[in-house]
Amino acid sequence: MLRGRDGGADFALFTDLYILTMLQAYVRKGMAETAVFDFFIRRLPRRWNYVIACGIADVLHFVENAHFSEDALVYLSSLGHFSQEFLDYLAGFRFTGDIYALPEGSIAFPSEPLLEVVAPLPEAQLVETFLINQVHFQSLMASKAARVVRAAAGATVVDFGSRRAHGTDAAIKGARAFHVAGVAATSNVFAGRQYGLPVRGTMAHSYVQAHDDESEALRHFAALYPETVLLVDTYDTLAGVRKVVALAEEMGKDFAVRAIRLDSGDLGALAHAARRVLDDAGLHRVEIFASNSLEEYAIADLVRRGAPIDGYGVGTRMSVSSDAPTLDCAYKLVEYAGKGRMKLSAHKTSLPGRKQVYRQCERGAFARDVIALADEPSAGAPLLVPVMRNGARLPAGRDDVTAARERAHRHREFLPPRLHSLDEAQPPYEVALSEGLSALRDRLGAELAKGAGS
Amino acid sequence: MLRGRDGGADFALFTDLYILTMLQAYVRKGMAETAVFDFFIRRLPRRWNYVIACGIADVLHFVENAHFSEDALVYLSSLGHFSQEFLDYLAGFRFTGDIYALPEGSIAFPSEPLLEVVAPLPEAQLVETFLINQVHFQSLMASKAARVVRAAAGATVVDFGSRRAHGTDAAIKGARAFHVAGVAATSNVFAGRQYGLPVRGTMAHSYVQAHDDESEALRHFAALYPETVLLVDTYDTLAGVRKVVALAEEMGKDFAVRAIRLDSGDLGALAHAARRVLDDAGLHRVEIFASNSLEEYAIADLVRRGAPIDGYGVGTRMSVSSDAPTLDCAYKLVEYAGKGRMKLSAHKTSLPGRKQVYRQCERGAFARDVIALADEPSAGAPLLVPVMRNGARLPAGRDDVTAARERAHRHREFLPPRLHSLDEAQPPYEVALSEGLSALRDRLGAELAKGAGS
Repeated sequence: MLRGRDGGADFALFTDLYILTMLQAYVRKGMAETAVFDFFIRRLPRRWNYVIACGIADVLHFVENAHFSEDALVYLSSLGHFSQEFLDYLAGFRFTGDIYALPEGSIAFPSEPLLEVVAPLPEAQLVETFLINQVHFQSLMASKAARVVRAAAGATVVDFGSRRAHGTDAAIKGARAFHVAGVAATSNVFAGRQYGLPVRGTMAHSYVQAHDDESEALRHFAALYPETVLLVDTYDTLAGVRKVVALAEEMGKDFAVRAIRLDSGDLGALAHAARRVLDDAGLHRVEIFASNSLEEYAIADLVRRGAPIDGYGVGTRMSVSSDAPTLDCAYKLVEYAGKGRMKLSAHKTSLPGRKQVYRQCERGAFARDVIALADEPSAGAPLLVPVMRNGARLPAGRDDVTAARERAHRHREFLPPRLHSLDEAQPPYEVALSEGLSALRDRLGAELAKGAGS
Repeated sequence: MLRGRDGGADFALFTDLYILTMLQAYVRKGMAETAVFDFFIRRLPRRWNYVIACGIADVLHFVENAHFSEDALVYLSSLGHFSQEFLDYLAGFRFTGDIYALPEGSIAFPSEPLLEVVAPLPEAQLVETFLINQVHFQSLMASKAARVVRAAAGATVVDFGSRRAHGTDAAIKGARAFHVAGVAATSNVFAGRQYGLPVRGTMAHSYVQAHDDESEALRHFAALYPETVLLVDTYDTLAGVRKVVALAEEMGKDFAVRAIRLDSGDLGALAHAARRVLDDAGLHRVEIFASNSLEEYAIADLVRRGAPIDGYGVGTRMSVSSDAPTLDCAYKLVEYAGKGRMKLSAHKTSLPGRKQVYRQCERGAFARDVIALADEPSAGAPLLVPVMRNGARLPAGRDDVTAARERAHRHREFLPPRLHSLDEAQPPYEVALSEGLSALRDRLGAELAKGAGS
C-alpha cells in the first residue's frame, strides 16, 4: 500500500546512487567520524518573504526506519559497484545520530538550518536524498499556501489540488502542509484520513451533465445533501444561479443550501452579479464559493475589487506552486571530525560549523535572526530544538499537525507587517551572522582558497 | 511500504470527496448507465509542440485493484455524509468497465483523448482523481524530458531530479517517464530497481569536503571506482581539473577515470577550458559531464556554443518542469446513457461522444490527426487501443517501459521537423474534427445553449 508516511525495508533505496558509492568509500576508509549536515534555503523565490518549515515528521520517520532488506541488498549487489563487505555494512545499517530542527510550522529565512543532522558520516549522508525531497517539497507547499491564505483575508481556503499535484505523495503530503499553513480543509479523502484533516467537497460539472436537465441535477443533489454547495456554471452561470433561486422557492423552508460555486469566467463580476440575484431573492445567507486557476495574486485582486466571495477552492497553482515550483535549497556538510567544512563553488558557498539560530523580538514582533555557532551564546530565543537523539525520536519530533498549524499561525502574528506583503518586503527580514560564525567562515574560506590553488 | 505502483485496499480513498458524494447520488437514483469520460490536454504550454502520453500503466493497476476495506468504510462512515446503503455499495465496488488509451510513449496533441473510460457512471467517476493525478504528471514529465533530450543533440542525459521532485511518488514515476522520453539513466536507486532502469551517479561536494585535501579525495575515489566521474568544482574548477591531470600522471596506465563533472559557474567556458587542460595532458578520452540548473534552453545554448560536453545531469528544472509545471488537462463526461454530453463554461468546452483518433501520414511523416466519433470511419491509423475490458487489463495495457521508450523514439522520428523545435512550431500540428464529431458538437451546443437560458 502506498502510504502518506514512507517506511518499509526497501525505502532506504530512495537515494541517489552516488550516496551509496560515497558511503562505500567512507566505510572502506573508516571515515565514520561525526559529520554535521545542514539543510537550508539559499534564496527565497521572487516576491516571497519567508518560508514555513514542514516535512520534518516524515524525515524522522524515514530515518528511524531506514534499513536494507535482503531483497534490497541482492539488487544492490547486481549493480556491480559494491563489495560484500559494504553490503554487510548496509545489512546492519541503522541511523544512530542526532537531529535538530525548527519545529514544523516555524517561520524560517534564507541561510538558516531548517534541520541539522549530527551523525557518523555515512549515516548523515545516507538520509540526504529523502530528507531534501520531503523538506523541500513540504516547506514549499506550506509557504505557498501561507501566501494564498493571507490573500484570502479571512475567507475560507480549501485545497482542491490533488489532481494536478505531482503524483500521489505530493497530493497527500501537500494537503497536510496546506493545513499547517492555515488552509481550512482538503478535498483529498485519503489525506483526510491519514492526518485527521477536515475534508470538503462540492459537485462536479459531470454531475450536472449526466442529468438531462440542470435544474433536476441541482434539485436532486440538494435533496440528498441539504447543506451542500451547488455548482452553477456548467452551461450559463447566471442562469444557473436563477435555477438555484427557483429551487429555493420550490423547497421553501427545507432549502438549506450553504453556497453556490463559480468555476469559470470573470469570477469577480460573476460573484457581484450572482450576489445580486441571490440577495434579490432574499437568499442572503447563501454564500458564494469560487474556484478556477486561483492563486494568491488572483485572490488578492478579487478581494481588492470587493468581490462578495466567502470561500476559495484552490487547486493547480497552489499544489505545484506554479510561479515558484522549487526552492533553492541544499543539504551541505558543514563539519567533519570536529573541523568546519565549506564549499567555495560560484554562488554556492555554505556556512561552516554546528549552528543555532536565535530570533530576537522588538516591540512584540520578530526583529532579526542571528545564525551563530552552536556553542556561542547570543541574545534571542534559540529556534533549533533536538528532535532525535541516538536514532530515537524525541517528543519534540513527534508528528503533530495541529501543533504545527498553531505554530505557523502564531509565528505569522509576530511577523513584522511588511513581511505579510505578497511582494518583496523592503527591507527584507534581517538575518545576521554571529561574530564566531563570521570568523570561522572567513578563516576557512582563506584556508581553502589557498589550498585550492595549490 | 511505499511503492512506485499504487495499490492496496485503502488507496481507493485517493479521491476528491465530491466524487464520493456524487457517487452516492448516482447510486441512490440508480444512475448506473454507461458513461464515457475522456482525459485530454486542453492546450499545450507555451513553446511546446506535443506531449508524450505516460502513466497509463499505473492507472490500470489502480483501476484493477480499487476497492474499499472495512477500515476505509469505517472512516467514510465517520464523515457523516454517507448512508449504510451506499457504504454497502462501496464494500462491493469493483471496476467492470472498458478503457481505451494511447499506448504509453505515444505522441499526442490537444483535444485528443489520451484515455477514454467506458463504464457504469459511478465506476467511471470513481477513478477520476487518481487517473488525472497520474496521467497528467507522468505525461508532463515525459514531455518535458523529450525536450531536454532533443536539446542535448545526442549527448547523454541523466536524471538527477529526485531531491527536488515533488515528493517520493514524483521522483520514482518521474524517473520512469524520463526513461520513456529517452533519458539514459536515473540516479534514483529505488526507481532503478522498481522499473529496471539504468542507474548512474558520480560524487558529491560533501565527499571532497569530508577530506582535508581535494587531491586525496579524488585519488581515493578513483582507486575504488576506476571508471568513475570525478567532481572538480568544489573549490576552484580548473585547479580541480589540474588535480585530475596530476592524478592521471601519478596512476599511469591504471588511470581509467571516465569523466570529470562541472557543477557550477559558466559551464560553456569552463568546459572549453577544462577540455584544453585535459587534451594538453593527452587525456582526450576523459569526458566532460555537466550539471547545475540545466533545462532544454540552457543545454541548447551550450550545444550552440560548441561546448565540449558529453553528458548532462539534469535535475530540478526537468523534475518539476519548472517553466510549465502543469498541463491544462481535463477528465470530462462526454456521453451518458447513449447521449453525447458537453459543457459550455467559458473557455472550457469539451467534445461530446465516444471517439477515435486517426493519424494520417504523408511523405513518411505525421501530417495531421482527425478526432472522429468512435463508429465513424476515417483515413489514417487509429491511435486509441483497448487496454482494459470488463475490468481486466488487456495485453496492450501491460506495463512495458521498454516498449513505451521505443514507441516514443519511433513517434518522434515521424514528427514533422518543425515540431522538434524548442519554440512554437508554425504552423502547429493539425488536429481536425471529423464531420460526425463537428455535427454532434454543434447540435448539442445549440440544444444546451437553448436549455441553459430556459
